[in-house]
Amino acid sequence: MTSLSDLPIRDDLRGTEPYGAPQLDVPVALNTNENPYGPSERLVKAIGEAAAEVAAGLNRYPDRDATALREDLAAFLDTDTPGAGLTAANVWAANGSNEIIQQILQAFGGPGRTALGFEPSYSMHPIITRVTATTWVNAHRDADFGIDPEAAVAAVERHRPDVVFLTSPNNPTGTALPPQVIEAVLAAAPGMVVVDEAYAEFRREGTPSALTLLPGNPRLIVTRTMSKAFAMAGTRLGYLAADPAVIDALLLVRLPYHLSAVTQAVARAAVAHGDELLATVDLLRRERDDLVAWLRREGLAAADSDANFVLFGTFPDRRRIWQGLLDRGVLIREVGPPEWLRVTVGTPDEMAAFRTALKEIL
Amino acid sequence: MTSLSDLPIRDDLRGTEPYGAPQLDVPVALNTNENPYGPSERLVKAIGEAAAEVAAGLNRYPDRDATALREDLAAFLDTDTPGAGLTAANVWAANGSNEIIQQILQAFGGPGRTALGFEPSYSMHPIITRVTATTWVNAHRDADFGIDPEAAVAAVERHRPDVVFLTSPNNPTGTALPPQVIEAVLAAAPGMVVVDEAYAEFRREGTPSALTLLPGNPRLIVTRTMSKAFAMAGTRLGYLAADPAVIDALLLVRLPYHLSAVTQAVARAAVAHGDELLATVDLLRRERDDLVAWLRREGLAAADSDANFVLFGTFPDRRRIWQGLLDRGVLIREVGPPEWLRVTVGTPDEMAAFRTALKEIL
Repeated sequence: MTSLSDLPIRDDLRGTEPYGAPQLDVPVALNTNENPYGPSERLVKAIGEAAAEVAAGLNRYPDRDATALREDLAAFLDTDTPGAGLTAANVWAANGSNEIIQQILQAFGGPGRTALGFEPSYSMHPIITRVTATTWVNAHRDADFGIDPEAAVAAVERHRPDVVFLTSPNNPTGTALPPQVIEAVLAAAPGMVVVDEAYAEFRREGTPSALTLLPGNPRLIVTRTMSKAFAMAGTRLGYLAADPAVIDALLLVRLPYHLSAVTQAVARAAVAHGDELLATVDLLRRERDDLVAWLRREGLAAADSDANFVLFGTFPDRRRIWQGLLDRGVLIREVGPPEWLRVTVGTPDEMAAFRTALKEIL
Repeated sequence: MTSLSDLPIRDDLRGTEPYGAPQLDVPVALNTNENPYGPSERLVKAIGEAAAEVAAGLNRYPDRDATALREDLAAFLDTDTPGAGLTAANVWAANGSNEIIQQILQAFGGPGRTALGFEPSYSMHPIITRVTATTWVNAHRDADFGIDPEAAVAAVERHRPDVVFLTSPNNPTGTALPPQVIEAVLAAAPGMVVVDEAYAEFRREGTPSALTLLPGNPRLIVTRTMSKAFAMAGTRLGYLAADPAVIDALLLVRLPYHLSAVTQAVARAAVAHGDELLATVDLLRRERDDLVAWLRREGLAAADSDANFVLFGTFPDRRRIWQGLLDRGVLIREVGPPEWLRVTVGTPDEMAAFRTALKEIL
């Protein structure tokens, strides 16, 4: 029998493992930062109709530029962050923000080029960086999981990265980034600056989106996703906002017809029902703030969170806590700095199950 | 205003153009090798229902490994090429065969590595090769668009490529490949051998699929698509069959959750209606053979075709022919060797329009 090591794979892939949290069938899944609230019957019906409507033409290739979807997403961003003045020419979409990130690295990274991020952060950034043959440089976060602007500028000046990844809010710590940090990095960076805002809709009052910084900053890219607040993880729709020239660059590396006609139609149906989907955001923010308060009352550490998850600890043997929760039907994620664990904010019932299970273990 | 050249894109991308045939709105579109027969009302209904069924769970991530779809595709391949004994462990799926090819190059190509193909051939092979920072080597085809086994072996021994691309039938020439050529290349190649069978279902009697060569050849990969015979170009579903170890390699580079829950469901619905979709294949093969015979009767050259398109010529000024057809509402593709043009096989009415327009021009 042939094994992976018998095949002539790239040398730097040897010994690596596929990325991915275990997909286990458990009563309470709080491990992948999904939105626990599924679409309404009304939206389910609209999605089925949207798919059936494009089905009759599925023998034809889809709109390669996803123009109508990009118009809809631009209109949504205009309500999310009024004043940024974004149009379809500023927006690009792909199969999940992972593909967006891959296209950015294919266009602006590559052999002999460097991408820099501030870890602990989204683990796909260094993985996709490696797959695109770009060199990864890790600049560390502060003890409170924030990024000090002076330290960030010093790291950028030292490494001269072609791509800088910022995250706001950051996964897995939940930390939002003040605009001053982004502005300082933009001023120092010789290349592109990506602000990954996968969880932006969950941020607390007072933190503006990096979208407000787009005018006049053609090297800034803000990425978003429909997987979290929009509750559409299964649809795989990531997008970005940037100067139109950035989208011209991505057209050079994107796979033609990368976004299926069905994905475009389903995503448009979801954006059209955006009010319904985003209504869950307020519920989840309240539940998150209650969770942070509860964890602290229990004597645990909990990082401030602007996302739909909470990083908590500290546990000298975090594996024991993770396994104990799993034994009680609650799956969370063993990720992030040592001694910390990440729990996704679910429904009130799911969080009650989490609290009960955790109290039993402690 | 910022332009593309102001941005710090990869040096080797400077001056390149986005890939893609023009997406023009014309009465008779014979330019992208689509299947002209859309799905039946029954299948349209089934696709809508399949989408609605998964819609209720779209807040959750899809099955990362697309297990059920891969089982269905393996069962289809088992009827397509009995005896290959393929199971889900042999099959991998992605967003179009372009993403399949990209994943293969990400795993087995990369900086310092080489991919070799026999041009004229599918133009995305060298493009994706470049995007993945792999070096492209072109080994030429014979004057009759075939590949001589001895010349192919010599090219492989000279360049020692990490990945060899074969195509059967080849796009844009329509040429199928005898198994002896594939076997000779497999024996000589130090790396992976990819046989792109995007148009395999249209091949004439007597040419076996490269699937029959899979047992005992762990460095062989056969790629397929649902875009052509399956008439599902809008669904974006490419797949491959190979040794299970090859799929282990692709898991190291694939973007997690690359295939949406909706894509998986729609593709499964299409496979379940495979008899209906593939029934168009016989119609198209007959129409193709009639077209080749007609072109030759008109005194033109037409390459033998095992696909759903025909390469014909020769025209010292092929642009004039292409434009003349477009002026008459018939869009074909200006691609392939100089002086040749490629026309997709459409419905009888579409082919009549093509013949009338071409006669007017000549």
